[in-house]
Amino acid sequence: MTDKLYGGIEGGGTKFNCIVGNGPDNIVAEARFPTTTPAETLGQVCDFFAPYMSQIQGIGLGSFGPFDVDPSSPTYGYITTTPKPHWGNTHILGMLHEKLRVPIVADMDVVVAGLGEAKWGASKNNSHSLYLTIGTGIGGGYIVDGRPLRGLTSLEMGHIRIPHDRELDSFQGACPYHGDCFEGLAAGPSVEARLGQRGETLPDDHPFWDVEAGYISSALVNYILSLAPQKIVIGGGVMQKDFMFPTVRKKVQELLNNYINNEILLNKIDEYIVPPGLGGRSGMLGAIALIMDSGE
Amino acid sequence: MTDKLYGGIEGGGTKFNCIVGNGPDNIVAEARFPTTTPAETLGQVCDFFAPYMSQIQGIGLGSFGPFDVDPSSPTYGYITTTPKPHWGNTHILGMLHEKLRVPIVADMDVVVAGLGEAKWGASKNNSHSLYLTIGTGIGGGYIVDGRPLRGLTSLEMGHIRIPHDRELDSFQGACPYHGDCFEGLAAGPSVEARLGQRGETLPDDHPFWDVEAGYISSALVNYILSLAPQKIVIGGGVMQKDFMFPTVRKKVQELLNNYINNEILLNKIDEYIVPPGLGGRSGMLGAIALIMDSGE
Repeated sequence: MTDKLYGGIEGGGTKFNCIVGNGPDNIVAEARFPTTTPAETLGQVCDFFAPYMSQIQGIGLGSFGPFDVDPSSPTYGYITTTPKPHWGNTHILGMLHEKLRVPIVADMDVVVAGLGEAKWGASKNNSHSLYLTIGTGIGGGYIVDGRPLRGLTSLEMGHIRIPHDRELDSFQGACPYHGDCFEGLAAGPSVEARLGQRGETLPDDHPFWDVEAGYISSALVNYILSLAPQKIVIGGGVMQKDFMFPTVRKKVQELLNNYINNEILLNKIDEYIVPPGLGGRSGMLGAIALIMDSGE
Repeated sequence: MTDKLYGGIEGGGTKFNCIVGNGPDNIVAEARFPTTTPAETLGQVCDFFAPYMSQIQGIGLGSFGPFDVDPSSPTYGYITTTPKPHWGNTHILGMLHEKLRVPIVADMDVVVAGLGEAKWGASKNNSHSLYLTIGTGIGGGYIVDGRPLRGLTSLEMGHIRIPHDRELDSFQGACPYHGDCFEGLAAGPSVEARLGQRGETLPDDHPFWDVEAGYISSALVNYILSLAPQKIVIGGGVMQKDFMFPTVRKKVQELLNNYINNEILLNKIDEYIVPPGLGGRSGMLGAIALIMDSGE
């Protein structure tokens, strides 16, 4: 049994979630702070960690974006061009490091949540797992043997192009870059822009949910065909509607149409497309996984 | 300088290409045989290798599919349910091994071609590269650090769903499983089914080429966002039209719309989406790469 502790920070656009521990079974402290200004919020974060710093070996950070994760870039560790007031061009990694003086490793929020799920959560027994969040934005992280897949850049899979039947859904899409990409058609803001109300307030029997499930299923089919994950874990607000997982699973099978002769896709889809195993702590615990496994 | 030689076989639905050597600069012998029956074609293949077998350390095979590449499967090394006469349920790996008596390693044709390009061809300096073929079918292999990415299954990225504007192109798609998936809209047979003539005979100024380039670009954008390759190498008949690469590159940039702030995507796309560096030998040489790097 190790006494080593780690800090985890899930930095989101609404709140910063912080945790001290070394896994889901040993959480020493936990807190959340509203995302106001970098000085105020990061100040609260550092104050929270202060009593534990003698035991903390290092800190992991999962940040909202756009966040520069390229160590060779001059803006590595910066939140770059976000429209969020006060946070544009913020050297969040540097500010934390200056105050906390321990090794800090950072990655995109969704990648870090994927690491948490792969280490301790729903995909802990899978070498290749996809973590997707469908909420205010849509993003994904692909974890291979405990490490995020990354090539020329980080993955930006929320913006893939999917079929859009304009007779069924005449909305032109809400993505400022791509219009009707997956995020533009299916993320929270697109629901509100289309229907004039937030998805949370939309009744379960509203016909839009079937359209939404169709977009999600098209995207999942593309990820399955392009990446072949062994597990797909989906977090974020949209999937919290009870009926969403069963509907999406059924539509994925319909779209694949038995093309891939694999037992899990054909007969065990309930175990394949699943909610997070760590509940609301995927991001925080993932941040701990990130620093624990970083070699720092 | 090694004297070790290897055999490479690119087994296609039309012909089997065979090579002896240990790289593009040392090709000892090369031949091709029509794909007739397994007994006849594999007999010719084995006769071709016979004079070199005392020097050959092992043989790599890239096979047309559906080809079972899962070593834990009872039909590993089989061509399974192909509609091609004589070749259904053929234990191609076993038949070759029985006659040649050296280690033989096999994978899907497109994956093997990707390995060849990654070792000696257009993507030889890239740790993460995508190889795509667009011809009679559409398939892709993703090579990470010299090994094919594989998870629950092999990748089946030719069948992803992409936007299909039925006002622009009323064709319903030719894929027997998915109708208007990428392969169903853009592979050779779909061109012929739609226009009543083969793509090769279609004039360069036919308006369909712009539609075709649009489908290819949508798919490439999805692969870029989902996999982030450092290089995309595209083989197969469709891209051999001179104007196709420039058109596709331009459309990919238009669709990405500067969303990813990366110098290569923004300003060096000519070096990013490229034809094979090994010309018609990607598959044969890839088969040699497969066995050389297999540890057999």
